Amino acid sequence: MSERDVTICEVGPRDGLQNARGRMTTADKIRWIAALAEAGLPEIEVGSFVRPDLVPAMADTAEVVAAAKRIEGVSIVVLVPNRKGAERALAAGARKLTVPVSASRAHSRANIRMEPEQAVAQVAEILALARDADPPAEVAVGISTAFGCTLQGTVPEGDVVRLAEALAEAGVEEIGLADTVGHANPAQVKRLVRAVRAGVGERLVGLHLHDTRGRGLANAVAGLEEGIRAFDSSLAGLGGCPFAPGASGNVATEDLVWMFEDMGLRTGVDLDRLLAARAILAEALPGEPLHGHLARVRCAA
Amino acid sequence: MSERDVTICEVGPRDGLQNARGRMTTADKIRWIAALAEAGLPEIEVGSFVRPDLVPAMADTAEVVAAAKRIEGVSIVVLVPNRKGAERALAAGARKLTVPVSASRAHSRANIRMEPEQAVAQVAEILALARDADPPAEVAVGISTAFGCTLQGTVPEGDVVRLAEALAEAGVEEIGLADTVGHANPAQVKRLVRAVRAGVGERLVGLHLHDTRGRGLANAVAGLEEGIRAFDSSLAGLGGCPFAPGASGNVATEDLVWMFEDMGLRTGVDLDRLLAARAILAEALPGEPLHGHLARVRCAA
Repeated sequence: MSERDVTICEVGPRDGLQNARGRMTTADKIRWIAALAEAGLPEIEVGSFVRPDLVPAMADTAEVVAAAKRIEGVSIVVLVPNRKGAERALAAGARKLTVPVSASRAHSRANIRMEPEQAVAQVAEILALARDADPPAEVAVGISTAFGCTLQGTVPEGDVVRLAEALAEAGVEEIGLADTVGHANPAQVKRLVRAVRAGVGERLVGLHLHDTRGRGLANAVAGLEEGIRAFDSSLAGLGGCPFAPGASGNVATEDLVWMFEDMGLRTGVDLDRLLAARAILAEALPGEPLHGHLARVRCAA
Repeated sequence: MSERDVTICEVGPRDGLQNARGRMTTADKIRWIAALAEAGLPEIEVGSFVRPDLVPAMADTAEVVAAAKRIEGVSIVVLVPNRKGAERALAAGARKLTVPVSASRAHSRANIRMEPEQAVAQVAEILALARDADPPAEVAVGISTAFGCTLQGTVPEGDVVRLAEALAEAGVEEIGLADTVGHANPAQVKRLVRAVRAGVGERLVGLHLHDTRGRGLANAVAGLEEGIRAFDSSLAGLGGCPFAPGASGNVATEDLVWMFEDMGLRTGVDLDRLLAARAILAEALPGEPLHGHLARVRCAA
């Protein structure tokens, strides 16, 4: 693997498929994840340990983790919404968990049926579980609705900073800010990254951006200019949030990689192989709306 | 009109319609331009004085100018590719002309059948014509393919700076940089704006950005951070360049306004009225692909 200037975490198999219209088979998920790893993505969020009756698309995550773990050179991440999910994830052999904690009280209640304070306490329990696992697992936290919430509206920056500080105090070493509903603008990204950095320093690692208002790439550049070097994205811009009305897809991996590479930043990701992974996605989820500019430009050329 | 922090020039009636699949009637153009002015856009490029046999969509520009001039509070601009176009524009009563000059030699030849040096000499002639008009008219120059060219490939930054300097020497007081084919990235925008500013100072006024690679907004923010306060855009992202294969639409006016306003910058443009103008566009060009995130989000809400 070449050295990288930025680290892109592909979240399509989780954030994308969780919100897709169609359902991808387990075999296709595994094939797709292998192609994403083959394209050079250093980290892939392959699924979530949520209630299968609520999110049937994620019911096979244990099986996907088992297969994905066998791929070399890629870090496999799973999302866990609560303690029970973390137990299932660790039992399935997951070595990196990401826990969403909402800065918006309304979103927290709707999404995980908890107040943010309860969510922080639960993160502490998950940290303990992960520490006790053999081998110990990593835990990252994504602060969702950090830039706004369709349910609550504005999310005060102070709320986000306090939440990040509480998480750092609980022992979280990797914190991300998520623009769950795509409300962020570049000025706000710069402001909030600075404010959270002032509170928790280098524990603020990444950004998870959505392209709802078409500003995903502009917001990524804003984060980059404030020192952020880790970005979530999903191939073809798949994804959203079922509990945040109006939210459309994640920033498209291929366009993010393409822009960063054009800017002279090494992502370690190969665009042609990414398009090959996109072909698998298109085949495995027929009829799904796929976004992203790279495929369109390449096809027109 | 409120004070503005940024000035947006709507180029849809020119750049958009010149490259649209369908044809808009003169009456619809006038109705659409009136709605764009009603939305608060301070400047509208309403057409071009090009050869009607080559670009039939622009054949009625004199008539459109005559009607658009009667709208109060908006600056009406027309594109002229050469001296003959400038003569026609001035005869039609146009008071602001914009002349494209390509930094790419290959694009210059294909687009206006001239070398860049000939184009600068011709700009000097157009400046003289405009000065002698009664009342005198303004002349701006847009340096096209400033960030790359599908025909020539890379366009050296030195070529763009030298061209801008030659234009300034010829007496041009308003210069814009156009990403005609949408190859620019935010790092490049910052670099080139700085380099051209070092050469011609405040005569570098604006950016004309395309969204081919999805970076239109990111590039606008990059320009903004380097002090640019004037941006071209087209409603619904209409537009492209018929002689630059693969180029898709301009950055969408509604998304640019929306982002700037969210960033706390006053554009003087009303989003609801912009959507009303978009409805006219949709009606007057049925079947035309319309881009932009605002309409999609508003409709989903």
